[in-house]
Order: sequence, then structure tokens, then C-alpha cells
Amino acid sequence: MKTTVQTAVVGVTGYAGAELARLLLHHPRLQGKPPIFVGRVDEKDQARGGLPLTEIHPQLAGGEIVTALKQEPFSWDLLAARGAEVLFLATPHAQSREWVPEALKRGLSVVDLSGAWRMTEAANRAVYAFKDEGSELAAATQKQSVYGMPELHRKQIAGARLVANPGCYATSVILPLRPLVAAGLVDLEAGIVADSKSGVSGSGKTPTAKTHFMYAADSLSAYGVFTHRHTGELLEQIGLTADEIIFTPHLLPIPRGILSTIYVRFKKPQTRESVAKVYREFFAGSPMVRFYEKSLPQIQYVARTNYADIGFQLDAGGKRAVIVSCLDNLLKGAAGQAVQNLNVMLGWNEAEGLE
Amino acid sequence: MKTTVQTAVVGVTGYAGAELARLLLHHPRLQGKPPIFVGRVDEKDQARGGLPLTEIHPQLAGGEIVTALKQEPFSWDLLAARGAEVLFLATPHAQSREWVPEALKRGLSVVDLSGAWRMTEAANRAVYAFKDEGSELAAATQKQSVYGMPELHRKQIAGARLVANPGCYATSVILPLRPLVAAGLVDLEAGIVADSKSGVSGSGKTPTAKTHFMYAADSLSAYGVFTHRHTGELLEQIGLTADEIIFTPHLLPIPRGILSTIYVRFKKPQTRESVAKVYREFFAGSPMVRFYEKSLPQIQYVARTNYADIGFQLDAGGKRAVIVSCLDNLLKGAAGQAVQNLNVMLGWNEAEGLE
Amino acid sequence: MKTTVQTAVVGVTGYAGAELARLLLHHPRLQGKPPIFVGRVDEKDQARGGLPLTEIHPQLAGGEIVTALKQEPFSWDLLAARGAEVLFLATPHAQSREWVPEALKRGLSVVDLSGAWRMTEAANRAVYAFKDEGSELAAATQKQSVYGMPELHRKQIAGARLVANPGCYATSVILPLRPLVAAGLVDLEAGIVADSKSGVSGSGKTPTAKTHFMYAADSLSAYGVFTHRHTGELLEQIGLTADEIIFTPHLLPIPRGILSTIYVRFKKPQTRESVAKVYREFFAGSPMVRFYEKSLPQIQYVARTNYADIGFQLDAGGKRAVIVSCLDNLLKGAAGQAVQNLNVMLGWNEAEGLE
Amino acid sequence: MKTTVQTAVVGVTGYAGAELARLLLHHPRLQGKPPIFVGRVDEKDQARGGLPLTEIHPQLAGGEIVTALKQEPFSWDLLAARGAEVLFLATPHAQSREWVPEALKRGLSVVDLSGAWRMTEAANRAVYAFKDEGSELAAATQKQSVYGMPELHRKQIAGARLVANPGCYATSVILPLRPLVAAGLVDLEAGIVADSKSGVSGSGKTPTAKTHFMYAADSLSAYGVFTHRHTGELLEQIGLTADEIIFTPHLLPIPRGILSTIYVRFKKPQTRESVAKVYREFFAGSPMVRFYEKSLPQIQYVARTNYADIGFQLDAGGKRAVIVSCLDNLLKGAAGQAVQNLNVMLGWNEAEGLE
Repeated sequence: MKTTVQTAVVGVTGYAGAELARLLLHHPRLQGKPPIFVGRVDEKDQARGGLPLTEIHPQLAGGEIVTALKQEPFSWDLLAARGAEVLFLATPHAQSREWVPEALKRGLSVVDLSGAWRMTEAANRAVYAFKDEGSELAAATQKQSVYGMPELHRKQIAGARLVANPGCYATSVILPLRPLVAAGLVDLEAGIVADSKSGVSGSGKTPTAKTHFMYAADSLSAYGVFTHRHTGELLEQIGLTADEIIFTPHLLPIPRGILSTIYVRFKKPQTRESVAKVYREFFAGSPMVRFYEKSLPQIQYVARTNYADIGFQLDAGGKRAVIVSCLDNLLKGAAGQAVQNLNVMLGWNEAEGLE
Repeated sequence: MKTTVQTAVVGVTGYAGAELARLLLHHPRLQGKPPIFVGRVDEKDQARGGLPLTEIHPQLAGGEIVTALKQEPFSWDLLAARGAEVLFLATPHAQSREWVPEALKRGLSVVDLSGAWRMTEAANRAVYAFKDEGSELAAATQKQSVYGMPELHRKQIAGARLVANPGCYATSVILPLRPLVAAGLVDLEAGIVADSKSGVSGSGKTPTAKTHFMYAADSLSAYGVFTHRHTGELLEQIGLTADEIIFTPHLLPIPRGILSTIYVRFKKPQTRESVAKVYREFFAGSPMVRFYEKSLPQIQYVARTNYADIGFQLDAGGKRAVIVSCLDNLLKGAAGQAVQNLNVMLGWNEAEGLE
Repeated sequence: MKTTVQTAVVGVTGYAGAELARLLLHHPRLQGKPPIFVGRVDEKDQARGGLPLTEIHPQLAGGEIVTALKQEPFSWDLLAARGAEVLFLATPHAQSREWVPEALKRGLSVVDLSGAWRMTEAANRAVYAFKDEGSELAAATQKQSVYGMPELHRKQIAGARLVANPGCYATSVILPLRPLVAAGLVDLEAGIVADSKSGVSGSGKTPTAKTHFMYAADSLSAYGVFTHRHTGELLEQIGLTADEIIFTPHLLPIPRGILSTIYVRFKKPQTRESVAKVYREFFAGSPMVRFYEKSLPQIQYVARTNYADIGFQLDAGGKRAVIVSCLDNLLKGAAGQAVQNLNVMLGWNEAEGLE
Repeated sequence: MKTTVQTAVVGVTGYAGAELARLLLHHPRLQGKPPIFVGRVDEKDQARGGLPLTEIHPQLAGGEIVTALKQEPFSWDLLAARGAEVLFLATPHAQSREWVPEALKRGLSVVDLSGAWRMTEAANRAVYAFKDEGSELAAATQKQSVYGMPELHRKQIAGARLVANPGCYATSVILPLRPLVAAGLVDLEAGIVADSKSGVSGSGKTPTAKTHFMYAADSLSAYGVFTHRHTGELLEQIGLTADEIIFTPHLLPIPRGILSTIYVRFKKPQTRESVAKVYREFFAGSPMVRFYEKSLPQIQYVARTNYADIGFQLDAGGKRAVIVSCLDNLLKGAAGQAVQNLNVMLGWNEAEGLE
């Protein structure tokens, strides 16, 4: 087992990138081994050796090591010269489709935070319209890819060269549903509803009409109804057909956090204990899931943590359940889960650097 | 038809009370006839003839008439002496149970904003645990009561002495569902999900742990799962059994507004037009409902208006719909609907003073 | 005195434009005379006769008149053909510099909401770097211009063809300071501090890094320190030199509203009453200013109103005062004050359509 | 030098308490030595050995050690039995006045987060109206007390038994002003203005009218004008008379963070460099202050960190400066500074456990 590793991050400029930088900089196993930051760097910044990390994210400033860090122009040679071993890609989907095969060829391990390599079924990927869809290289790359949710695929991640880090919404829906569906409790014909609400950081850093303060503040809106591209992940990981679930995302007027309210009907009446037992057993050995025995989770309890919180209520007859799951979209929904995957890949304690 | 009327308001101190005062003070039919405000007044304020309205709600200040208004100590004699004709009760449920029969006996018409007289079935009222449940007077009073949703009961409201103003959540769920259920489109066996989210003003003005800024801000939480007391209204007005719908309220970190996301399955596949037609016809002649032909409503479009906005999306097969409804919980969900009811009761233009 | 007037609005697409549309559509004097909306219209919309107002601002929907309104391609001929009499310009500064002289030439009266014609001193305008600075036409136009703050220039506005509607920050600083400085109370040598905080709508509708929800939410930042372009207005209207005041704007994480905290030292010790008397007398006959005898105003009391609220506290010795002023930046700070100016120009009740 | 220490916390239930618990639980020097939590515990909880920490603050859950922690009924015997060495008091002022002398007598070291022991001048403490004011014990205790701002009193804190942890507002005003005043740059006769804005957590956890979401959200208000009780700390630590500064706090609609905008006039014109040099030298060796060479700090850069950020702008003539300081009121303004003091008291790295 390696005791440390040299990481590199492409795409530190976004919100997930900032969290990834913060986590890697403070990870106990990576002390003295700060990540290599690479990406687009304009001419002016090239002249001074790169764009200082603390100009990109002033909140990260503090200490000499951080002050010296810069985002440098991306090049495979630079990564090789610096001895990069694990590459985190917080890049657009199209870029990840292009760079991941190259990175694997060059012997790097990859944690890809984009949606590029998450789905095995072409139909589920269709919404992304990847340009290389159908190519041999893409097929071979997809075969190597493991869906990076340790609670479901711990063993495969441990041996993986390519980990496809899950979508934020997807994580908040898969974690609470997979255990119940796998246990055969849920009446799939009756249909499942996943009503999800996410903070604005989920919409990215580029200023748009939708991320304008005046659009999001004091409001709430549904979007991507029946069309959101995390749907494919849900189906594959929970094991559902498109007819068996409706997933509706909403834009919440808060910076970060997702709450998903999930409605299921059971095949047979359940008790609080019969359902709780399924969750307890499924998440035994999963330090980053907190199951609520009595109450329901709230966004304020998970914000800025890597935990996924899950709780539920049964109706009087035990035939229906409302399940509530919460997580921080930038941590368990992105950068935190990426570091969790790093830990699993390297055989380290899964929660290291995440508490 | 009366051209004007003398109104009185009990409970102006709350959030709905403030909106009610504002609407009645600016209502074109009530110019020069400001409401009589009555309620609890402490000794110090009694000595100065009541508590000035502009001390309760500084935002209402402006103009001599408003400046002179005071909340005076409640008494039936005062109401009689001042010639009160229509009484608005923005009071706790228990108080409305006691005062409404007395008001009716004294010849007043009443618009009651509490949950006291909304439901005809004792089972649906059980959650309120009214002390006078089962008494003859209560039964007789309930018989006189009309559920104050003009879009459903316009004619009965026109002749009513007692109008039970609907709950805010209930309004946001009944308006979008009643037309489809009444038209026989919805597969009730498959079950309906109503996932509702409300701003903090819906939780009242009394400071509690739940209304603390630090609890609500940057968060989201579900509450009252399977137990919220607006459920009974839903069932009666839509025409459902408790097994046919799950209604889950959530606390949104915004001051005002409700968005309900509603999930239905149809008995037979529908088209966008077949569903739209039902809505258009149902709400023809209902000026306070805005049906969205293409897009979905958002809270920002209804906040501080008396409109209920409704839009929907069908899945590819036309078998399932996601319906989104929005309203302002203090207006269409409380004070605005109360004034709409006043207009209907008196034969005035339903939207008068509300645009 | 005219009983009504045909208005036209250029720039309805912005936040101030939305408020202006709302106010003009509901103004009692303008019933049946909706504004003509003109501006940039793309080809697709030209083909359908313009861009529907309710697509620009869905919250304005309701009623047949509004539904039919469209923003049409700007042209002087169209304005003439439709009989436009008063033109509201909610346009960028450069555009107003160009269009205002032309509008005056064509016989229109103008209320200009930009900063184009607010200042008489070239030095104070320098920060805008107007292209036509120094031209004869510009000088002649500026001479016609009246600073549109009725509380200071009611008489001149009544006779004006061109009203330069004040800046939002400027209004919040001029109104509380002008009375005290004019009365000779303030020690100008000691210097005045105006610490102003504004909601995000003040930064405009174009999505930028600064208007991103993630930038403004949960934060506060100072900007434009010693350089904000409203400074010139302050100096001219209060009667100060640049050394006598520091004005610092801040970006508040709220949609709308400005609060300015203003610090002055008096030449001689004052009493609460001596200061209050100055304010009372200055604002006698000004229905849109609410002076607080005891407490301090807050943004929540003025949001969505056209009031400017002013209150103050003295220190124990009566030598220093903290003055707090509040207003809604889109109303008294923009569209509301514009309508107030319209009322004054036409000899109508100054507060008509604004309460 | 001790390598670890047994801590105890009274008052973990509040917002500062939660942060203190989090910091102490993750402090590298305190692994395996969780704090003893004591306070008021009701009968029901006493029966189960105390109130679980994770019920008080669900966000802290995670890991076996935390799960087992409970707030136990306060008693000196319990503290002694468990070997408590350093006591953190996050208690009301009156309680700290009573318990601190007793704790010192019993050999405990104390970091007191209340305002009880911060000021040496009786006049500055008057606003607190301490019951034991003037007693011999109180005088003796005050003499032992060191104002817990390491940037000013590092050496005294290192040897102290009693550290009075500074107020949040006070920290945000003292840190940026002390260096300039000490260097003799500031024209004190002209007067200083400190306009401070704080998030709602600064107002405490008890639900009140002022902490209601509807009061704080979408608003801003000034309070405690000329009367706020942090004023005495400012005067003593900066070295000012009451006439030389006006300090005005405001309630910001955000959960946490303080920004203070400070206005000074210089005796002689300064340059950017001459001022920057003073700051750089004063804060050399102070790892928790980040001085901004070019830009101004914002709340978003300090929230959830223990940093105090300071930046400034000069006017063209170099005679006036606007200084902006930011910190997190629960960290550098409370719990974080308390742990920083702990580090200094024990001779540890001042920033340990705080980055």
C-alpha cells in the first residue's frame, strides 16, 4: 500500500475544484505533497509562472505552501515531469471524453468528476451526445470505468484505474433507494417519485440568467422535468426502467446542499424496524452515510460535510414511505466523494481527510 | 348590490393580518371606510385608545388615514357600535371555533382565515382536536360554512354568511388537482404525490426554534410527513381518500411563496393539449388563476400577487405528468383569497383590489 | 392640467423597467392608456409584432390589456404615430446622451433614469466619460435638465421638459443630508461618512461574476471605494466638496433595498428636537418621505414601496449623529421616483399611483 | 510544554459552543481526549447519563467517539473527577462572573467567551451592570484576566490563568485600528467611524423577534447605536476615548460573518506603502491575520475560517482611508479565537487545529 501519492487537478477554478483543492491540501496522507494544478492559463499569467491559487479562491489563502501554488498551463509533459500519479478531472464532459483515454494510456489513474464515463448503456448516455460515441476507444475506456460510489462498489473502486465520480443529484437518489430496491421491498410498478432540490453551486460558476442572484433568491423553480441528464445514472445504479421513476430537480435559493424527497410504495406492509434494518445492514461499514433512526435529515446538518444523511417516515399502514436524503453537492456530491474514491483506490481509510 | 361595506379585522398583528390590512385599505370599494381593527390590547395601549397600526406594521405607514388607525380592544359592542358588517378572523383555530357562531348570531358575515370551519368530515378535523367537536352549535355552524375557494365554489360563496378561507398549502394542491380529478383523468389507485415547499411566513410570527433565521436559512427540511393538518382539506376538496395522495410540506429559506410539485399517472395516455384543455375550461372565468401554456411557474412570478400559477409537463408516453403550482402563501394562500371571497360575497368583481 | 398622458418606455427589460411598467399600468390617471414599450427586438419577435411584455416579465401577467402588450422595435416614427407625449428612458448612459436631445427636439418630454444628465459640473461627470462632453448640444441639453428629486426641486420639475431621475444611492444620501447641511448644522470640516448598502438588483440584470448568486449570497463586500459615480450627484445636490464626504457602497445579499448609515458632527450641540424640527419642516408637503420620530428605519419597511424613510440617533452630548435612511432602489431609487416626477410634471398629486 | 490537555466546555448548546466542540474534537493535540461537556441537563436526560451531543448538534455526528459524547450536569466535582484542566465558558455574562473565580480557585485555567472579564475600567463595564461590581474578589479576578487577542497580547496570554476571549465586533474593529493608532498615524480629533455588519448567529440561539427569519431576511437594520456593549473593549484595546470613535452595528441577513468598514483621517498624508508597511510589521508572526495588499476582503472569504482579513483604500490625497476587515463571528470572533488562545496558553503552534 502506498503511503502517499502525487495528485494533479484539472479544473480547480470551479466550485468543486475549490473544494477538491481544500481537501487535498489538508489530507493527512498528502502533507508536503500539494496537488499539481493545471488548466487554461492566459498569457499574462503564464509570464509569472501561472495563476496563483489564492487569486482564484481567496478563501484558501493561509500558510506558505498554499501561497506558492499556481495553476499552470496544462500539458502531459508537465504532469509527467512532476510525477503525477492520480489525476482529478473537474472538467466539462467533452474534455473528459478526450483526456481520460490519454491519461490512462500514459499510466495515470483518473478520478473523473464529469458525466463522461458514468453510464454503461448507450441509451442512458444519449442525452450527452458525446462526439466519440460508438468508437472503439470509448467503448474500451467505458469498460475500465467504475462508478465511484464506494457504498455500492467499494471493491471494484479499490482496483480501478478509472473512477467515474457520480453526479450530485444521482448520489442523493441512489443511496437511499438502492438498499430498498435491492432488498426487493419496493413496488416498482406503482412508480417511484424523487423530488430533488439543489443549491445554486450545482449550476456552475459561469454567470447565466439562471445563476443571477435575482433569479434564484426568494424563489424556487423546477427544471429539467423528465429530461435531466442524471436520470441515466439513477436507472443503472438503482436498477430501474425509465417508467419506474420520475426525477424532478429544483433550484433552491441557497449556496449549497441537496435534499431529495423520495416516495415509494412497498409490495407488502413494512414496519419502521423492517425498513431500518435494511438501511443499517446496507450501510454497515460505510462511514460517510448517516442513517437517522428517528428523525429526518436537513440540509443544514450536511452542508460542508462529506456525509450523506438518510431518514424516512412510514404511513400508518406501512405501505408507503417518504424517504429524505441530504448531502452537500460539492462534497459527497462531487469533490468529497472524489477524495473518498481516492482513499478507496489506495487502500486508505475511506473517511481519511473527510471528517 | 352593496357598493361598500364596513369591515372589521381580528388579528391584524400577524403576517396575514398585515396583508389583509393593506388590501382592505387600498380596496377601491372601501375608500373612506377603513377596517375596524380589534384584538388584544395591553393596558398601556388602552390608555391611548389602542395600539397604532403603524407601530405594529411600520411598512404600512403613509397618509393621514392610516396614521390614525389603531387596534382596539375586542368587544362585540364596539363592533356593533361601529357598524361592522363583515368580520375577518385571522385568529387561532380555537378562537374561531368560539367566535364564529357568536358573530353569525349577531348578524355579522364572517370570513374565517383559520382552519376551524373548513372540513365537513369529523375524521378530517380530528387533527385539530376542537373542544366543541360534536356539539349541536358546531354542527349547525359547520353546515353554514362554505369552503372559500371561488374557483370551486363561486356560487355558494356568493350567498354565504360564513366563508372558511382555505389553507395555503391546500390551495396550492387543490387548484391544480381538482380539474384533472374531476375530469376523470387521474389514476387514483396509482397514487398522487404532492411535494410542497413554503416560505417561512407560513410558520407564523411567534419566534420559535423553527422560525429562527439560523434554522431556516441555507437549509431545507421536510416536516409534518403524513400528518400535516391541511391534508383533510385536500381530501374533501379534491375528492380523494387518504390512501390516494401523499402530501409532504417543506420549509423553504425564503420569506413567502409556496411551490407544489405534483405527480400524477393518467388512466389513459394524454396529450399536452388534452390536459391543457381541461385546465383552460375549468379556470375560464377565474381571473386569479394563470395557466401556463408552455413553461412552468416559479415562486418569483407570484410573490406579492394574488395569483395561483399552474403549469405542467408530460412524459414522452403521455402517461405521467409533473404539475407545478405556485402562489403567495399570505395572499392567494390567506389574505388575498379572503378579499377575493369578500368580493364574491358582495357581488363585486372577483379581482377587485387584488391586481 | 392634462387629465391623462400617453407614456412610452425604452428599456422595459431591466429591473427598473419592470417596476416602471407595473406602476404605469396601474396608475389611476393612465387607465386605458398603457405605455408604448419600445427597444431592441430580434427578428423572430419582429415577425410577431414584438416581444410580449409577459414573456419578459411573467410576474406582470394578468388581465387582457397586459397580455396584449409588446415591446416593439424602437423608432421615432412609431412614437410619433402612437402619440407618445412623455418618454421614460431606462437605458444605458451613452444611449440617453444620444436620444434625449433628439426626443426634446421632437417635442417629447423626457424622464431619463440614466446618469446622463444629472450633473451640471463637468468634473462631476468626468467618471462617465461621455463622448459628446463639451459639445454645444450637450451643454444646451444639460441646461434644460432638472434633477428629479421632488423633495428638493418640486417647482422646477413642474415646468421641466427634461427630468434627470436621480441615482438610487444618491437619493438615499441626499435626502437625509440636504436638510441638515442647508440648515447650517453640520461641521463640514470634520467630514461626513455615508456608508451605503444596496441589494443586488442595483447591479443590473446582465449576469456577471458579481451578480452570481454564489458571489452575493451569505456575503457582503465594499466596492467603488472613493470612486463610485453617484458621488458627483451627492456633492452637487447636498452642496459639498469631495473632501467633505466619504461615500462607500456595499453589495448586500438581498434582492432590493438600500440602507445608508450616515455620520455627521454638528457645529454646535443639538437636541433630538432641534434636529427633528429641521427634518419635519424640510419634508412638510413631501408625501413620499417618512420621518421617524423615535426609532430607525429598516429595509423591510420600505421594500416595494416608494417611501424614503429617515431616522437618527444623537450621542449623549448632542455633538454627533448617526442618521439612517432606507429606500427601495428600484422604486424611490428609480422607477417610483420617475413616476413621482411624472406626477409633478403634470400637476397631479405627487403620490398618485405610488401608494 | 504539555503535549495535550483535558478540556471542558460549559455551554455547548449555543452556536459558538457547536464550533468550539467541532474544533476541540478535531484538534491534533487533543485526539483521544474529547472535551467534557457540562451544563444544564433536564431530568429525562440525566436518567440516560446526559444529553447526547449529536442530538444538540446533528451536524457533528460521525464516528464512534462523537456518538458517545453527552452534555452532563455541571458540577465542580465532576470536572475534578474527570481531570479537567482548561475550562471554556460559553455562558451568559452573569454566570461567568460567578464561576470564573471559583474555577481559578480550584486550579483550572479558564478561557471565558463572555463579556464578564474583558475590561479593566469600571466605566466601560457599566453597561453590563454586573452584580458583583466593586467586590474585592471581582477586582482580584479582573487583575488576573488577559484580553485574549494573541495579535496584541501573545506574551501575556502565554502565562495567563484567565483569558477573556474578545467580542466578535470588537475583534473586527480592534485588529484593523490598533496598528494605525499605535503607529500614531490617525487623527483622533477628527474621529473614527466603525460601521459594522454581522450575521444573525451573533444574536444568539434563543428565538426572539429579532432572530425571526422574517425580521432578518431581505432586510438590514442598525441597532445599539451609541450604546453597544462591545464599545468599551474597543476603547481600551485601541486606546481611544468615547468621543474619538462611533461604532454602529447592523444585522445582516446571513448566518455568519462580520464586515467592518472603518473610516479614518490621517494626521499627515500617507501612501499605500506607508500604511501597508504598518500592517505588515504589526501582523508579522500572526498567522491568523491575512493582510490584503491590493484588494478588499469580503465575508465569503473568511466564513468558516479563523482568519481576520484586512484591506484598505486611500483617497487621492492620502489623507483619508477606508479600511475593511472581515471575520467569522463564531470563529475568530468566538470559538476559533478561544482555541487560538488555548494554543498560545500551552505554547503550541498558534494556528494548530484552526486551518
